[in-house]
Amino acid sequence: MSSILVINGPNLNLLGSREPGVYGTTTLEDIERLCAETAGRCGLQVACFQSNHEGAIIDAIHDARDRHRAIVINPGAYTHTSVAIRDAIAGVGLPAIEVHLSNIHARERFRHHSHIAPVAVGQITGLGPKGYVLAIEALADIINKGG
Amino acid sequence: MSSILVINGPNLNLLGSREPGVYGTTTLEDIERLCAETAGRCGLQVACFQSNHEGAIIDAIHDARDRHRAIVINPGAYTHTSVAIRDAIAGVGLPAIEVHLSNIHARERFRHHSHIAPVAVGQITGLGPKGYVLAIEALADIINKGG
Amino acid sequence: MSSILVINGPNLNLLGSREPGVYGTTTLEDIERLCAETAGRCGLQVACFQSNHEGAIIDAIHDARDRHRAIVINPGAYTHTSVAIRDAIAGVGLPAIEVHLSNIHARERFRHHSHIAPVAVGQITGLGPKGYVLAIEALADIINKGG
Amino acid sequence: MSSILVINGPNLNLLGSREPGVYGTTTLEDIERLCAETAGRCGLQVACFQSNHEGAIIDAIHDARDRHRAIVINPGAYTHTSVAIRDAIAGVGLPAIEVHLSNIHARERFRHHSHIAPVAVGQITGLGPKGYVLAIEALADIINKGG
Amino acid sequence: MSSILVINGPNLNLLGSREPGVYGTTTLEDIERLCAETAGRCGLQVACFQSNHEGAIIDAIHDARDRHRAIVINPGAYTHTSVAIRDAIAGVGLPAIEVHLSNIHARERFRHHSHIAPVAVGQITGLGPKGYVLAIEALADIINKGG
Amino acid sequence: MSSILVINGPNLNLLGSREPGVYGTTTLEDIERLCAETAGRCGLQVACFQSNHEGAIIDAIHDARDRHRAIVINPGAYTHTSVAIRDAIAGVGLPAIEVHLSNIHARERFRHHSHIAPVAVGQITGLGPKGYVLAIEALADIINKGG
Amino acid sequence: MSSILVINGPNLNLLGSREPGVYGTTTLEDIERLCAETAGRCGLQVACFQSNHEGAIIDAIHDARDRHRAIVINPGAYTHTSVAIRDAIAGVGLPAIEVHLSNIHARERFRHHSHIAPVAVGQITGLGPKGYVLAIEALADIINKGG
Amino acid sequence: MSSILVINGPNLNLLGSREPGVYGTTTLEDIERLCAETAGRCGLQVACFQSNHEGAIIDAIHDARDRHRAIVINPGAYTHTSVAIRDAIAGVGLPAIEVHLSNIHARERFRHHSHIAPVAVGQITGLGPKGYVLAIEALADIINKGG
Amino acid sequence: MSSILVINGPNLNLLGSREPGVYGTTTLEDIERLCAETAGRCGLQVACFQSNHEGAIIDAIHDARDRHRAIVINPGAYTHTSVAIRDAIAGVGLPAIEVHLSNIHARERFRHHSHIAPVAVGQITGLGPKGYVLAIEALADIINKGG
Amino acid sequence: MSSILVINGPNLNLLGSREPGVYGTTTLEDIERLCAETAGRCGLQVACFQSNHEGAIIDAIHDARDRHRAIVINPGAYTHTSVAIRDAIAGVGLPAIEVHLSNIHARERFRHHSHIAPVAVGQITGLGPKGYVLAIEALADIINKGG
Amino acid sequence: MSSILVINGPNLNLLGSREPGVYGTTTLEDIERLCAETAGRCGLQVACFQSNHEGAIIDAIHDARDRHRAIVINPGAYTHTSVAIRDAIAGVGLPAIEVHLSNIHARERFRHHSHIAPVAVGQITGLGPKGYVLAIEALADIINKGG
Amino acid sequence: MSSILVINGPNLNLLGSREPGVYGTTTLEDIERLCAETAGRCGLQVACFQSNHEGAIIDAIHDARDRHRAIVINPGAYTHTSVAIRDAIAGVGLPAIEVHLSNIHARERFRHHSHIAPVAVGQITGLGPKGYVLAIEALADIINKGG
Repeated sequence: MSSILVINGPNLNLLGSREPGVYGTTTLEDIERLCAETAGRCGLQVACFQSNHEGAIIDAIHDARDRHRAIVINPGAYTHTSVAIRDAIAGVGLPAIEVHLSNIHARERFRHHSHIAPVAVGQITGLGPKGYVLAIEALADIINKGG
Repeated sequence: MSSILVINGPNLNLLGSREPGVYGTTTLEDIERLCAETAGRCGLQVACFQSNHEGAIIDAIHDARDRHRAIVINPGAYTHTSVAIRDAIAGVGLPAIEVHLSNIHARERFRHHSHIAPVAVGQITGLGPKGYVLAIEALADIINKGG
Repeated sequence: MSSILVINGPNLNLLGSREPGVYGTTTLEDIERLCAETAGRCGLQVACFQSNHEGAIIDAIHDARDRHRAIVINPGAYTHTSVAIRDAIAGVGLPAIEVHLSNIHARERFRHHSHIAPVAVGQITGLGPKGYVLAIEALADIINKGG
Repeated sequence: MSSILVINGPNLNLLGSREPGVYGTTTLEDIERLCAETAGRCGLQVACFQSNHEGAIIDAIHDARDRHRAIVINPGAYTHTSVAIRDAIAGVGLPAIEVHLSNIHARERFRHHSHIAPVAVGQITGLGPKGYVLAIEALADIINKGG
Repeated sequence: MSSILVINGPNLNLLGSREPGVYGTTTLEDIERLCAETAGRCGLQVACFQSNHEGAIIDAIHDARDRHRAIVINPGAYTHTSVAIRDAIAGVGLPAIEVHLSNIHARERFRHHSHIAPVAVGQITGLGPKGYVLAIEALADIINKGG
Repeated sequence: MSSILVINGPNLNLLGSREPGVYGTTTLEDIERLCAETAGRCGLQVACFQSNHEGAIIDAIHDARDRHRAIVINPGAYTHTSVAIRDAIAGVGLPAIEVHLSNIHARERFRHHSHIAPVAVGQITGLGPKGYVLAIEALADIINKGG
Repeated sequence: MSSILVINGPNLNLLGSREPGVYGTTTLEDIERLCAETAGRCGLQVACFQSNHEGAIIDAIHDARDRHRAIVINPGAYTHTSVAIRDAIAGVGLPAIEVHLSNIHARERFRHHSHIAPVAVGQITGLGPKGYVLAIEALADIINKGG
Repeated sequence: MSSILVINGPNLNLLGSREPGVYGTTTLEDIERLCAETAGRCGLQVACFQSNHEGAIIDAIHDARDRHRAIVINPGAYTHTSVAIRDAIAGVGLPAIEVHLSNIHARERFRHHSHIAPVAVGQITGLGPKGYVLAIEALADIINKGG
Repeated sequence: MSSILVINGPNLNLLGSREPGVYGTTTLEDIERLCAETAGRCGLQVACFQSNHEGAIIDAIHDARDRHRAIVINPGAYTHTSVAIRDAIAGVGLPAIEVHLSNIHARERFRHHSHIAPVAVGQITGLGPKGYVLAIEALADIINKGG
Repeated sequence: MSSILVINGPNLNLLGSREPGVYGTTTLEDIERLCAETAGRCGLQVACFQSNHEGAIIDAIHDARDRHRAIVINPGAYTHTSVAIRDAIAGVGLPAIEVHLSNIHARERFRHHSHIAPVAVGQITGLGPKGYVLAIEALADIINKGG
Repeated sequence: MSSILVINGPNLNLLGSREPGVYGTTTLEDIERLCAETAGRCGLQVACFQSNHEGAIIDAIHDARDRHRAIVINPGAYTHTSVAIRDAIAGVGLPAIEVHLSNIHARERFRHHSHIAPVAVGQITGLGPKGYVLAIEALADIINKGG
Repeated sequence: MSSILVINGPNLNLLGSREPGVYGTTTLEDIERLCAETAGRCGLQVACFQSNHEGAIIDAIHDARDRHRAIVINPGAYTHTSVAIRDAIAGVGLPAIEVHLSNIHARERFRHHSHIAPVAVGQITGLGPKGYVLAIEALADIINKGG
């Protein structure tokens, strides 16, 4: 069964456990469970990975080459600063969709630019946890067409 | 039954009828049919509108206030040049999702910036016609929560 | 009797009819009535025009050449994006005053620059509907001096 | 007989009828007559179109696909602001030459950049009505080579 | 009786006394008399202050807190360079309208930006001495509403 | 006994006397008293100076050469606009520490840059009146080492 | 007893052990001892952490949530490049003071901007090891007020 | 008989002799012959000059003052870097038309700007060798009108 | 006998009295004496004025209208920040030459731009006290021609 | 025997194992073997290190101080984003040469700038694996001269 | 007897022989004669050189090393584009003064910046032929002090 | 036997003959001898060319087409200003390596950008005369592979 790697970048481990009034009570675990359910509905498996380390995210992308068919990535703040993650995604050649919980285009100017998006298939922003669901659905289509 | 307005901006009427080797054979009509099917599946109606006129798109957004619960908009080239469409969306106060068939972040630099995105709920780019499907699914969630 | 054309640009038709808590209850009709009263007090006539279409505003400016002695224009969002309206005003050669209800210099950076102002006689911003009153008074002076 | 569409953008309808001391006494009609004569000399037909509406110009470009072999376009102020007209020209795939009566490179800085030129065959500026004549002659060559 | 402080910044003391062919024969005294008349008509008093010293203008703004209800300010060249005057106006919390005799948006690029405007109620430019009249009328409205 | 000059720039005389809900109730006098106490504790004297005049601040810095061993300066808005104060500090050669009550790096972009900081020993921002205390303690160390 | 986390970023482990003629002979251990002494004097504990890894610094900030009341951070070169550390500090919500041994505003232009400062309470630069002492004193005040 | 100087700048001597698959087989000699034919048809003479030396091109422009009535110039790469050639053309006061074989507006960004165009009558780009023909025709008109 | 006003701006009073190893031992008094000698040699009088206050310099320029025929000004740091001094010089209409002791074009980037130079007759930089001598000689020529 | 540390940054572990048609079949191991051979030929030893972690690369540079005489570094994507690696190299004071397999100056604009190069001895780009050979030869010269 | 080289750059050979109403009737020969007279008065010789070729000017600067003691240079348009002339002047180490007939700071923006000035002793602009006289007088002083 | 052209640009003829304390005592002749030795070792011939004239360098590149197999070029200051040399190298299609004696990335900002590098095979900077040796070795490899 085909598998997708879901990568969450820096600070996303804080989700839900703090300031629920602001960020809602959805935790990273909730999002990962949602991803697993969506993938199951699409006949896919998911593996989930979170790290605050740019290098660890790159390592995970490299490892995905032989284990996964596609990548969902919320690069968090590395979206705006990491050329290395961009090169990793371009290097392994797996289709990737970039997801952001918030609408980065409505936030500070330095969050408008993504180093990752130009090498991704596409980008989904502002739709909260639903963005992960939609990304997996879209990748399922791509995997099925490619299959 | 709640209804969503799907707006397609300039040059999207050309889709599919020309250079199928480049843009695929999906026509605007195909996309509009796909939107109707998706909406039906979500218990929603859609109305579809395409225009090459910035003013006509603004008029359509104004008219949507009393007729629709949400907007899917692919503003085409007006994404990058129209503050007036931005103000129209902000003015009517309906939740809107911006969709682009291509990955605008991977194209010319002047296509990276969206005047519309900061007043939209979110943006979906690069996923082809599937982007419209995902946008309607996400708006269905928002309408249901709000309902 | 000399006449002034009052042009309101995109989204100004929404005034007052929505979100009165935010924008007040003054409607576009109220502003147009205020313009007529002011003009009457100054011995002038006014014609009022609103459109969300850049091209229609240009057409109206062209038509003003033989019918009006001056122009009050609130170009709305086209202030920041329309070189064509600028050229229309410069082309017909009528004295024009640019009016904005809000203080555009206190809003987002992209609203600070006006393409229109350099070819207008002057600009009045931030004074609400009163700005139209003052613009008509100032144009009455100019018409009288010129007469 | 092959046909060329000559498009004139915003404010070009004002030509000649106003400030003849500044702009000369050549009217838009004179230019269109000159285009017809030149085309006839080259064994071509021309259709002429002028509009102040960006959307109407896009519609006209779309319509040209099945009726014309090439386009001469003086986009006026839309030269500097319209990505949508650019995309229309690129979309229909007809060879187009951009013409400007004045030397835009000698005017205000914001008139130096053309959104249209990168998708046109070429650009002719500063040569007055003669620019249209030269553009038609050049397109006649291209049509003949392509024929 | 409510009072308004009219502040004129650097070089405005030169008005009228030099190059009447260029700047007209209106002197600063004429403008101040015009302000007094307008204020009288509106049931207000004015105090007039001119200085070429940034610090003296700040001192005057501070002093206005307990003596005046509103400020008309033509900051002259300090418009473009003084963050300190901006902070003074924001600090005392009186409603202020920025006036410029000339249309600063039609002059050199460095005159387009105002440090003061974002903390003022609004800005009136290009209307000559009439701009002061209009500013006082507008402040009269604000004072009366606030009263 | 060694002495330090404490300079407060434009608008800092407004502190505490207005909008206590926003700025707190600490007045400039409170801060100057705090400076005196801190200096006393460090075996130093302080002289305090406040002015809204850039030139007066420069004069004060020049006068400090023969009377003081170090300078604490909160240049207020002149931080961002005064090359002349910068040159004065560099010219007299006394060690200076720049202090800001608020965190200027979290405010408007034009407040992030300091003309003064490059010629100061260092900068303390965002710590309220405590910033003056810390600056004096740090200068005490420097004076003692230099002594 | 309340505790403060002192974080030192990349290359600060090199302090003192190399080029003592340039950087002085103060080592990181000296600074950490100075922090402990200062904290003790203020009735606080400190934990000290140094890493050259951006991710490890983020992990340490996350861990601080339940163990410390405040953070002193010298982010070294990550000051200028790490949005992720900024988001970590904003995310855990602890008051943080940014410290730099050198006066970053007097060095290369790219060292003038801090990603961290806008989410910190304040910034202390250029005061050498004393900066840490002052930061702890300031945080002690904040903790005591907050307590 | 009136004469025109045709100047070709750096690297244009390489035309046609290399990479015919890319640049076509038209040589500089072919272009110069085409210019002579066109001029003959217009009752004019041409002199042709090519150099890779900026200084030699300036010398040639100076020499043209007493020998020629107009200039056709393809400045090649000096278009983008030579203020000196610009000043030479402005200095001799002959009408000049700038020609480029390729569409410089569709190439690298640094090729979009011309130092020469602002002092030329106009610019023709992207029309290949035909551009020279059109330039000579346009100059013939100008010479005849001036004659 | 015609008279010239020599204005020295902020910090120039420090000259020579401090750091003679760096700035030389020439004092402001020496420069003023040199100016007087040069003027005498040219049959002119000089008045010398120094101030650290921007406003006082503007006042002095205004006063010069009726007393002097020309101005030599070393605006010091106000060169780079004062639009108000620029407007004062333009306003009084006296020929002015800007002098700088050091070569401002070889110093920090922010010292390269002069607000004053565009309204001066010319600028002399980098020639030390000799620059004042040359400026007076040049103004003597201008006064004599104008006389 | 003197030793050189060869550092390869993020994604360079992917070399050769993927897309041989694009990147060739040279693997990182091949490059490291080539380095060893070259070093041997020059009478030097090499140690090779690759990591995708910025922090690990900094650690390795620190460790090199006591073990190696020079550094060859291909910082990969960190070239463009890592001030921390720059500071590490400057901090340890070993001569370093920056190597890139591809010609970064011919790639995307954001790859033209190197944070590392200003603190390196020099930079070699575009010469493929040969670049490492040349860097070692150059460092051998430097070590021998220094020896 | 010490000698000075006077270099005039591109287009300065056109002086006086054309458009005397605009540029005056002073020719390059007049300026060179003026230079010779001034030099004679100062006990110096001059050699004069004019070229439109950047390379020839560099050659002349190199040749000056063994023949001249100082350089007066009006680099014309090369002021703004030639790093090579800058490096030549820095390379030969002779004191040089840059002269411009017109006030380049009052002309187009691209003429404000000089590549040469940072390596010259100073710059004299806007004083017409007198600028050469003053430059020679200043260099005479420098030569005499150095002698 | 294959041959390489070694081009040295402006001011490189000054090497070694001046300021040996700064630039070393290596002359251009030494570098050219080193190039010949290296080439001989690689079984290649070299021809060496130096000029201060941009046009002469372009001529030399053109002439190299039929005589040489590759180019080593140190364009000196033309690196940063010459699009024409770039186009010459691209035009002749020979593999070229750009060499700089100094580390241009560590010098003034305007020396960081190379117009030439994007069309070269690669760039070697900062390695002194050794850079020429390495460039020839690398080109020998390329020639041998190509042969």
